[in-house]
Amino acid sequence: MTFKTDIEIAREAKKRPIQEIGAKLGIPSEHLLPFGHDKAKVSQEFVADARGRKRGKLILVTAINPTPAGEGKTTTTVGLGDGLNAIGKNAAICIREASLGPNFGMKGGAAGGGYAQVVPMEDMNLHFTGDFHAITSAHNLLSAMIDNHIYWGNELEIDERRITWRRVMDMNDRALRDMVVSLGGVSNGFARQTGFDITVASEVMAILCLAADLEDLQNRLGDIVIAYRRDKTPIYCRDIGAEGAMTVLLKDAMQPNLVQTLENNPAFVHGGPFANIAHGCNSVVATQTALGLADYVVTEAGFGADLGAEKFFNIKCRKAGLTPSVAVIVATVRAMKMNGGVAKADLGAENVEAVQKGCPNLGRHVENVKSFGVPVVVAINHFHSDTDAEVDAVKEYVASLGAEAILCRHWAQGSAGIAELATRVAEIADGDRAQFAPLYGDDMPLFEKIETVARRIYRADEVLADGKIRSQLKEWETAGYGHLPICMAKTQYSFTTDPNRRGAPVNHSVPVREVRLAAGAGFIVVICGEIMTMPGLPRKPAAQSIRFNEEGLIEGLF
Amino acid sequence: MTFKTDIEIAREAKKRPIQEIGAKLGIPSEHLLPFGHDKAKVSQEFVADARGRKRGKLILVTAINPTPAGEGKTTTTVGLGDGLNAIGKNAAICIREASLGPNFGMKGGAAGGGYAQVVPMEDMNLHFTGDFHAITSAHNLLSAMIDNHIYWGNELEIDERRITWRRVMDMNDRALRDMVVSLGGVSNGFARQTGFDITVASEVMAILCLAADLEDLQNRLGDIVIAYRRDKTPIYCRDIGAEGAMTVLLKDAMQPNLVQTLENNPAFVHGGPFANIAHGCNSVVATQTALGLADYVVTEAGFGADLGAEKFFNIKCRKAGLTPSVAVIVATVRAMKMNGGVAKADLGAENVEAVQKGCPNLGRHVENVKSFGVPVVVAINHFHSDTDAEVDAVKEYVASLGAEAILCRHWAQGSAGIAELATRVAEIADGDRAQFAPLYGDDMPLFEKIETVARRIYRADEVLADGKIRSQLKEWETAGYGHLPICMAKTQYSFTTDPNRRGAPVNHSVPVREVRLAAGAGFIVVICGEIMTMPGLPRKPAAQSIRFNEEGLIEGLF
Repeated sequence: MTFKTDIEIAREAKKRPIQEIGAKLGIPSEHLLPFGHDKAKVSQEFVADARGRKRGKLILVTAINPTPAGEGKTTTTVGLGDGLNAIGKNAAICIREASLGPNFGMKGGAAGGGYAQVVPMEDMNLHFTGDFHAITSAHNLLSAMIDNHIYWGNELEIDERRITWRRVMDMNDRALRDMVVSLGGVSNGFARQTGFDITVASEVMAILCLAADLEDLQNRLGDIVIAYRRDKTPIYCRDIGAEGAMTVLLKDAMQPNLVQTLENNPAFVHGGPFANIAHGCNSVVATQTALGLADYVVTEAGFGADLGAEKFFNIKCRKAGLTPSVAVIVATVRAMKMNGGVAKADLGAENVEAVQKGCPNLGRHVENVKSFGVPVVVAINHFHSDTDAEVDAVKEYVASLGAEAILCRHWAQGSAGIAELATRVAEIADGDRAQFAPLYGDDMPLFEKIETVARRIYRADEVLADGKIRSQLKEWETAGYGHLPICMAKTQYSFTTDPNRRGAPVNHSVPVREVRLAAGAGFIVVICGEIMTMPGLPRKPAAQSIRFNEEGLIEGLF
Repeated sequence: MTFKTDIEIAREAKKRPIQEIGAKLGIPSEHLLPFGHDKAKVSQEFVADARGRKRGKLILVTAINPTPAGEGKTTTTVGLGDGLNAIGKNAAICIREASLGPNFGMKGGAAGGGYAQVVPMEDMNLHFTGDFHAITSAHNLLSAMIDNHIYWGNELEIDERRITWRRVMDMNDRALRDMVVSLGGVSNGFARQTGFDITVASEVMAILCLAADLEDLQNRLGDIVIAYRRDKTPIYCRDIGAEGAMTVLLKDAMQPNLVQTLENNPAFVHGGPFANIAHGCNSVVATQTALGLADYVVTEAGFGADLGAEKFFNIKCRKAGLTPSVAVIVATVRAMKMNGGVAKADLGAENVEAVQKGCPNLGRHVENVKSFGVPVVVAINHFHSDTDAEVDAVKEYVASLGAEAILCRHWAQGSAGIAELATRVAEIADGDRAQFAPLYGDDMPLFEKIETVARRIYRADEVLADGKIRSQLKEWETAGYGHLPICMAKTQYSFTTDPNRRGAPVNHSVPVREVRLAAGAGFIVVICGEIMTMPGLPRKPAAQSIRFNEEGLIEGLF
């Protein structure tokens, strides 16, 4: 069999003018701020108006732990949105924006795949509507103002060794990870060590994705802890006076972006925080706008359900007052086989036993998501080499858990391949069966929150943290940050902190290496293992192959 | 008298949808890529088509040496465009884009002033259509690829001490001027000293503004010299393989931006290279598009005519094959008084003698511009405190040179105040009197080119340059760069290299401190004096006052 590539399919898309897509949601064209003919931002005024309506049902798409075989979480999100529209429902999807920098290392990705994609794919992988550039500017303005404050006398008594606010760039540039700035003498300031992270790791990104509106955005930006004094008292962004200008820089970026699926259904693509040191969901503003305009809103969360769904529920839903109606957990036969011990090269051969052996990874995610009070459906994202026996093995396993698994062929067939899942998801959502509650209350001590997630989601026996980390958490509780949720940063490949432990491991420990306060975003980052916040480029970066070909088409980006 | 501020006037603008503005130039709406309702890019296809038409007359607006009193060069460019339209001509203007970073230091500027402005002013001072962000990304991609190349084995044998390609950011951040990167051990690369410039100082900016189309852009980007080996042989961007990806990043930025004046006439605002280390003009693509669509195109060049017009003629017109029909030199009574020795605080009082004493600065610019074979008209940009006797003194002085000066009141009256100038300029342009030629031929040796500009434009006795600089120029001639024009970087405040010497000094020398090869842009930068390529923020940066006020309007940016 030969298949068209994602980019070939995307380029054949029969896109409709973005005003037509907006009209499907009742957005008048004067409230759509176009970027070219196929992208638009929804005006701030209209967003404020839509938020009040809250008519839609929220559907989360999450997944098993990712494997090299791929799961197709975004593909299923897009497919389910198209599927709901195809069965006569009014649905919109909400997904994250892509980061520019990584595209120059490895080939960039589609938003979705096959016949379940969002377009325009090329723009979405390049500058799109400039949101990430605005975040970069806002972040770095604060950085410049901090060094400028020190340069002019350091009235705030910033301890130059305790500046936590770095700079950001949307680029994979390892040379910028660790540097000494302000060299060159008196006129350039005081030399100090610092570095750059990639833009998606900026707290400004997390803030933009959690802020309700411009006022909330400005307050949260003001709350950012940028440094400490020698006496360890914190210094805030608002002490530097940057939050107003940062808000002005972000005014357009706060407006959600509207694009379309291959089937011309509305897709909000807005925000893109890291799923490790941040919460990994699209913006609250986009989700709430979509919920105000559509009857069903399909959204996704980063990585597998142990990280993505957990943070979606415990951080995003808690903070924004969202109540999900149903969750779809995406699994594939191939990923089950990998969890069952099959190597990637051998995935093509039928192996029902391996599928059965790998299913407990899926099973634990099903249990976990249900524990939030949210009904679960499993979507088996079909791959052409899957056999009926393998698919049946997954279905039987899921049935044994008291849940159901539905085979979906949206990758190959678009909405026609996902009608069954769409129908079932709509039924569950309409039945109002969910009794959503976050896993822990605001009042639980911070360390107990970590233990709760580790025990109930990761099924770990214990959390390991030295005295310094425990006392740091106590200090934050004393300083008034004890009510914050925690944002776990660990490997996405396993329930444990060891990326090689697939399946559903038990008897493991979660070592906490570091904790960080994101006071503006409103969470405590709990780092378990190595987390890279500035990637590097590979030996042969994709950038070397990216160019316009003779037909004027972009080559090498996908 | 009280006047409305520029921003108050701009906010009262009765903007028309950008499609209507495009229609005035015959741009069909499918070739206008909108950014909101009041900005658009003109599609690459349409630009290519328009370039072939070449129907318009090109009018340059330049000025005397700037003084703290202000001249109003952009204001006059905008006013003259509106004036030409008001007398029934089909005219467009072409100006530069504003840089984002400096707005957070000092208050940002309007594009024009009073009733001769381009809108939307706020967007134009913020992210606008993202061009500068794209330039930043393209520039820094190359930087990251250079360090990445060294990291993976340095096959090209780049001498880490001789890397000339730095990084850029559109921010005033003095801490980034001079730094050591790649600290932190093996996984972060090889430590080396480098720094950031502000984005407008990037060679990518100059290249974008001089490139004819995407193909030319890619070739020029490939030509950039990024470093030297130990044997001093150059290493190019194309050796790193970055030019294709950079071109893809710049594909939208290469399309000129269309906005409108307060009188709803078309304005192209595109590109913004430094006027010292670069040539300081808007893009060739925008100018050629405008010339293909309008009968008259009014454009401006940075700083006074000694830098701006000289580089406009010797670099931009030479490279792009443009032939200007007439030049307008903007002067003000107040600036003449300052050139005549009056302090800024005393400018309000009538002082005909000081006006007369200051006029030789204007006179020399008139002579210089004429020496390029371009007819000259002087525009006296009226200020409310000017007396009739002072205005007459300027007119009489200009008449004594065989030229004419016309009083213009566009700042206060819009097009109604500039009808006389518009009429006269159109007459001259229609008379095809210009016999434009650059000041020197391509074949002249590089040092002689410097001497030619210094003697004929600055009226210096000599050019001082040590043996190292002279031999560097010789080396470049040997390497095949001898045909390039020179790009002078000196103070804008004087014909000399001493910013305090106003008027029309003689008996001075031009010391050359440094020469730099901009092989992609296609010129040799000749640096005479201190040139800052990364500004800092002041003690109380404007950013601290920028915010949304209670009415949702941006405060503190203007």
